[in-house]
Amino acid sequence: MSNGDIFVGEIIGTAILILFGAGVVAAVVLNDSKAKDAGWVVIAFGWGFGVMAGAYTAAPLSGGHLNPAVTLGIAIDTGNWDKVHLYVAGQMIGAILGAVLCWLVYLAQFQANAEEKKAQPTLGIFSTAPAIRNPMANLITEIIATIALVLPILAFGLTKGLGESGTAILIVSFLVVGIGLSLGGPTGYAINPARDLGPRITHALLPIPNKGTSDWGYAWVPVVGPLIGGALSGLIFNAAF
Amino acid sequence: MSNGDIFVGEIIGTAILILFGAGVVAAVVLNDSKAKDAGWVVIAFGWGFGVMAGAYTAAPLSGGHLNPAVTLGIAIDTGNWDKVHLYVAGQMIGAILGAVLCWLVYLAQFQANAEEKKAQPTLGIFSTAPAIRNPMANLITEIIATIALVLPILAFGLTKGLGESGTAILIVSFLVVGIGLSLGGPTGYAINPARDLGPRITHALLPIPNKGTSDWGYAWVPVVGPLIGGALSGLIFNAAF
Amino acid sequence: MSNGDIFVGEIIGTAILILFGAGVVAAVVLNDSKAKDAGWVVIAFGWGFGVMAGAYTAAPLSGGHLNPAVTLGIAIDTGNWDKVHLYVAGQMIGAILGAVLCWLVYLAQFQANAEEKKAQPTLGIFSTAPAIRNPMANLITEIIATIALVLPILAFGLTKGLGESGTAILIVSFLVVGIGLSLGGPTGYAINPARDLGPRITHALLPIPNKGTSDWGYAWVPVVGPLIGGALSGLIFNAAF
Amino acid sequence: MSNGDIFVGEIIGTAILILFGAGVVAAVVLNDSKAKDAGWVVIAFGWGFGVMAGAYTAAPLSGGHLNPAVTLGIAIDTGNWDKVHLYVAGQMIGAILGAVLCWLVYLAQFQANAEEKKAQPTLGIFSTAPAIRNPMANLITEIIATIALVLPILAFGLTKGLGESGTAILIVSFLVVGIGLSLGGPTGYAINPARDLGPRITHALLPIPNKGTSDWGYAWVPVVGPLIGGALSGLIFNAAF
Repeated sequence: MSNGDIFVGEIIGTAILILFGAGVVAAVVLNDSKAKDAGWVVIAFGWGFGVMAGAYTAAPLSGGHLNPAVTLGIAIDTGNWDKVHLYVAGQMIGAILGAVLCWLVYLAQFQANAEEKKAQPTLGIFSTAPAIRNPMANLITEIIATIALVLPILAFGLTKGLGESGTAILIVSFLVVGIGLSLGGPTGYAINPARDLGPRITHALLPIPNKGTSDWGYAWVPVVGPLIGGALSGLIFNAAF
Repeated sequence: MSNGDIFVGEIIGTAILILFGAGVVAAVVLNDSKAKDAGWVVIAFGWGFGVMAGAYTAAPLSGGHLNPAVTLGIAIDTGNWDKVHLYVAGQMIGAILGAVLCWLVYLAQFQANAEEKKAQPTLGIFSTAPAIRNPMANLITEIIATIALVLPILAFGLTKGLGESGTAILIVSFLVVGIGLSLGGPTGYAINPARDLGPRITHALLPIPNKGTSDWGYAWVPVVGPLIGGALSGLIFNAAF
Repeated sequence: MSNGDIFVGEIIGTAILILFGAGVVAAVVLNDSKAKDAGWVVIAFGWGFGVMAGAYTAAPLSGGHLNPAVTLGIAIDTGNWDKVHLYVAGQMIGAILGAVLCWLVYLAQFQANAEEKKAQPTLGIFSTAPAIRNPMANLITEIIATIALVLPILAFGLTKGLGESGTAILIVSFLVVGIGLSLGGPTGYAINPARDLGPRITHALLPIPNKGTSDWGYAWVPVVGPLIGGALSGLIFNAAF
Repeated sequence: MSNGDIFVGEIIGTAILILFGAGVVAAVVLNDSKAKDAGWVVIAFGWGFGVMAGAYTAAPLSGGHLNPAVTLGIAIDTGNWDKVHLYVAGQMIGAILGAVLCWLVYLAQFQANAEEKKAQPTLGIFSTAPAIRNPMANLITEIIATIALVLPILAFGLTKGLGESGTAILIVSFLVVGIGLSLGGPTGYAINPARDLGPRITHALLPIPNKGTSDWGYAWVPVVGPLIGGALSGLIFNAAF
């Protein structure tokens, strides 16, 4: 894979991931959406199928990491750090771009929301926030949830047949659905620094009226937690497999 | 694939797609249906499994496009425009036919609905309508949502193993579920000119009592938007892959 | 496949299908069930995964038809009627047995239901009933819904890779989920004569207190409709493919 | 597979299974969880994707049994009992560990729950409890539900292609979703002695304030029932296949 392919692949793939992921929260949260209040199962499957759409699209170009925690885990596992910066740069740009695309898709809804007397806060569409704000507990949640993502992904590479049948990414997508259902309750499961930081930047920059705070005080948790989780996954994998 | 196979395959496949897709909306919307009010997750999975049923059935005959936006994206990608008219003609006939089949399945429910004092409008079962009527915003939504469909489909062709294992269409089906969950909120996700225009024609022609308007003023959006999205997908794919 | 394998395979597979299918309705309908009122999406996925469980189990022995309408469609397609009676006999015995197993799983719930002042009618757990009783409309619904099952199944045999990857039955399972979501509203989608008649016999025979009627007046519709649909599927498949 | 690989694989895999499984109940049950009251469909898919995550991770090391009832059924089928103790020991340790991980993920929620005036009982997050307490009926439910798990798993080994395409574990995961939807109503479907006993031990040991009883009086049912079911599955499989 050429440097250009990796960079472009991660941009496109992560943009699609965030378009779907931010999109499904917009669909459930914003008034005047046909999926309004459709519930947590919709959120979890929407993010999972976003991984599926983005990773299959990026796979022929970059392998489809779409997540610095995954890139970090793979680098620790393989000892190859040459392209890590390319992956992460593409992921961050893609995440920012994907959040813009989500905003375009729900443009009329964002407008209508701002015009209501009591505008809904909009950050939840872009980035995660904890149900109970407790940085140390939130960090532990993100670390464990990210291990539950990256360790299985590393193990999938050893599973006979998944690569040959092209279904490995489908399994990863359902894994992300499962993490959402099971481990998303406390923090909204960032499990991906680019997924959280990129759209937070977009939220800060976009001219959404009455958009509310971008909550930068919490922004380090969904970056540091997943990075620790990704690194631990690489270490556990090297020790146990 | 012979011309006859393509034409027949697209008719059968698109008819099955619309039978399931219009069917699931009828199931959720009409009174006296056992799935009444079953929610957006049911709508999205119903349409996705409709794609699965229709495309797997059509695949041995025509490859199973079932969507002029897909056919357009593939034509731009490959430069081969020879059979485009056959595909689109089959898709339109199939979509009209599938909507008739849906009406037959829910015949008693349509009858009961019309006999109630305040008959429900029935167009929503057949064709899409925006949550907020804003043609330019609705068009943008349909363009982006269609790119989220056609660009991944083009990339799936490059993914090692998906073709050999026969699972590519399954992945497309879950992709359509994901688009419904994530991007369907503003316009009800036509993402397919035949899917919207065909059943709208059926709605205009069928003798449903108290059926309400066929809303021809909006009909161009879910045709033009998906065609632009399909064309852009072909161009992006050729540039990036 | 030997005669004994076919017979035993269809008994075991259909028993598992009905155990799951009747089970999910019991789970949603009966009081004192942890899945009480879990909704239509649960019903549809429960039946679909029942097909998956039963058909994969039966497949090495009998191919896993589990449905006289499927057996009929295949016989018309192939012209081979030699083992049809074995398949159908196994399917009927399996369906009766599966309904008994479901009753055993929910024994305490059935008991508690009967002891309540107003016992719930229990036939809906075992067999289908129409939302609007109109035999001709109900028959049309069952015919079209069965074509939507059997025609795709016949086409799956032509799809490159599905057999080699072992995923054909998974696709059929999701197809059944889709039929439930989209076409189950009017009649509760029997689409399988054994699935409806077998458990109706079980309901008539089991000593469930306050069990209510077995509704034999409707019993012909979910037998005749699926058989017509299965036969039409074989004819359409032979003509078009 | 070396003894060490089996032991470590079953620990890691079962820990992941219980992390997801206990996690999804915590997500739905605990206040201050974003998935609060998300319903039975979320519970069933959460457990199923937990099997998927754990079994794919363990598969390269141990084959991914994660369940003494599965190990028992395979031992009876193959007649090979050499490693059974290794599997079961790993499963028990993993289950205890996974429940600790779940507690860490939901630490802030457990704390908040205990501080409320009327603390919720927390055992349901860790172990099963019957909807109607009737040991003999509960035992029958667990036996049949476990046969519905282990017999299909044994048959999957005979299905052409599932091993080659790497999708066998995905099918098992959906099977577990189906068992939850269809057969989980009466007892909450342990169908796995380690899944129930391990987290019950964790619940008894953890310093959760106001945690309520560990209900040891019921603990034998979800151990004995699944073991009987696993053994019967092996016997039925050997007789019929």
